[in-house]
Amino acid sequence: MNIIMDAMGGDNAPEAIVKGSIEALREYDVKITFSGKEGEIKKYLTDKNLLNRIEIINAEDVITNEDKPVKAIRKKKDSSMVKGMDALRNGYGDAFVSAGNTGAILSGGLFIVGRLPGIERPCLAPLFPNGKRFSLLMDAGANVDCKPAFLNQFALMGSIYMENVLKIESPKVGLINIGTEEGKGNKLVNDTFKLLKESELNFIGNIEARDIMSNNADILVCDGFVGNVVLKLMEGVAAELMSRMKDEILKTTKGKIGGYLIKDSMKKLMGQLDYSEHGGAPLLGLKAPVIKAHGSSDSIAIKNAIRQSKMFLDSGVNEIIKEELDKGGNSN
Amino acid sequence: MNIIMDAMGGDNAPEAIVKGSIEALREYDVKITFSGKEGEIKKYLTDKNLLNRIEIINAEDVITNEDKPVKAIRKKKDSSMVKGMDALRNGYGDAFVSAGNTGAILSGGLFIVGRLPGIERPCLAPLFPNGKRFSLLMDAGANVDCKPAFLNQFALMGSIYMENVLKIESPKVGLINIGTEEGKGNKLVNDTFKLLKESELNFIGNIEARDIMSNNADILVCDGFVGNVVLKLMEGVAAELMSRMKDEILKTTKGKIGGYLIKDSMKKLMGQLDYSEHGGAPLLGLKAPVIKAHGSSDSIAIKNAIRQSKMFLDSGVNEIIKEELDKGGNSN
Repeated sequence: MNIIMDAMGGDNAPEAIVKGSIEALREYDVKITFSGKEGEIKKYLTDKNLLNRIEIINAEDVITNEDKPVKAIRKKKDSSMVKGMDALRNGYGDAFVSAGNTGAILSGGLFIVGRLPGIERPCLAPLFPNGKRFSLLMDAGANVDCKPAFLNQFALMGSIYMENVLKIESPKVGLINIGTEEGKGNKLVNDTFKLLKESELNFIGNIEARDIMSNNADILVCDGFVGNVVLKLMEGVAAELMSRMKDEILKTTKGKIGGYLIKDSMKKLMGQLDYSEHGGAPLLGLKAPVIKAHGSSDSIAIKNAIRQSKMFLDSGVNEIIKEELDKGGNSN
Repeated sequence: MNIIMDAMGGDNAPEAIVKGSIEALREYDVKITFSGKEGEIKKYLTDKNLLNRIEIINAEDVITNEDKPVKAIRKKKDSSMVKGMDALRNGYGDAFVSAGNTGAILSGGLFIVGRLPGIERPCLAPLFPNGKRFSLLMDAGANVDCKPAFLNQFALMGSIYMENVLKIESPKVGLINIGTEEGKGNKLVNDTFKLLKESELNFIGNIEARDIMSNNADILVCDGFVGNVVLKLMEGVAAELMSRMKDEILKTTKGKIGGYLIKDSMKKLMGQLDYSEHGGAPLLGLKAPVIKAHGSSDSIAIKNAIRQSKMFLDSGVNEIIKEELDKGGNSN
């Protein structure tokens, strides 16, 4: 199993990418192929025992967060991302991990790696803190304009992923909506409700936005615009509340002492909400696994994204998706 | 100035509605017309000095939160909401306030009160905690499927409301999006961006979801599906975080003491986020002001919603909207 790593993507690249990959090589039975600036990558390859499981595709260019996604994928042919994805398409490796520009990863996934036959749109599916557990949010931003059939496929792919990678039996699918009853919401959501109700998935109905953090769905389905708003708003509200709480507490001596005493509890709570330990967000529906790691990934998050790629491949998710689509009479 | 009150709408009706109205009668130069069960309303009318400024329209039926909005407005002719809105349409009063079923208020606004000439869709516009201030969220759920022209009109109406009712000079309009640059987002948002850029409004561009609680826009524009998701998710995340924080803190003795010490600071913070003191959410774009008070409104929130109706009427928002639409060559 050969995992291709975009060595230059993310806030802490290449150091965190290479170090996380080395930790993964020590723990898991995988090979690593780095795509990126050979000279910089080699600086961190200090353990000579691992070198026989490492390869480097030299790529001198880098796609940054400021680059326009589609243009960058088309023009920056010598970038670590494009060269890494080219290698994936050509069968040189089995999966691709990047902590770089999300839009570019989506474009590269679509234009370089390509969709699975029968899949209308690939979908970005991060794990999302939901109640005491995590659920898959699909789509988190790959497709801002969706049709009901896309959302129905997201739910199918998500169910297969949760069942086979996260080993959740008969995973529950919820539809993000502005009310719980059937008939609520906009046209897209209404039509999607009907498709999901008729499907063989374990559809549990609409999930109201106020319950997104405290419901029991394993997969939360929505279009990529709404999903992106949900994901970022949640991060923003949590950060803003914590920052204001700190401001308020530090205004009085009593508050300062209290704040000191609850510090450990708060750390524990924040840990519960941290999804980096689950690796990255898979881009589901592509011919080979592409994992988007968080831009601020440290070496541990990178190691976890590699573990996740391995589990993705071991579980045969893509093969099962293909089988299910064939069963459903889908073809493309 | 005669404010019509739906005496039977909301979790604390009729008591909170009648008591809040009495407080308003003592503070403001208004008259109150209650729509609802005369017998129940009269129980709380203990101050005989105010009776000459109070009228009652007897209505024996009530629209509940379980009622289907459109059907309820059409069938429950003897409900406090329908009779109150009928009175508004017939010029018996100047504004209507209800803490009842939101969907029914929206339907009644559209079908009984009617749109201002030239307005494509009325819009529900609650005040939303944003940074250290509040901004208007439009639309918060009245229109789940929107066209760019609707959103452009929401921005116009919101600007007029913020300028004239909340006395904010040249209010800033932001567009909720999944990125800050022009060209980001779905088709609706992209096309709306162009309209807002060409308009004479003080358009400050896209506001990313992560910054919704900490930006400097006075008006946040989006379709009613997204707006409803934003509003409810924010409430849900705040409630869930606070509840989990409490759970975590109460697990240790140290945490319990700390929690006790920060109690006052936390109360203050929650007060900052509480929008009930600003009254309710106006339904903008109707022939006469309709204010949706929060379902859980107490008498103070009701008094504030009456103050808000008075300010709405005093400021002549509807007349200014009509003028602006005439200027723009809009007609319907």
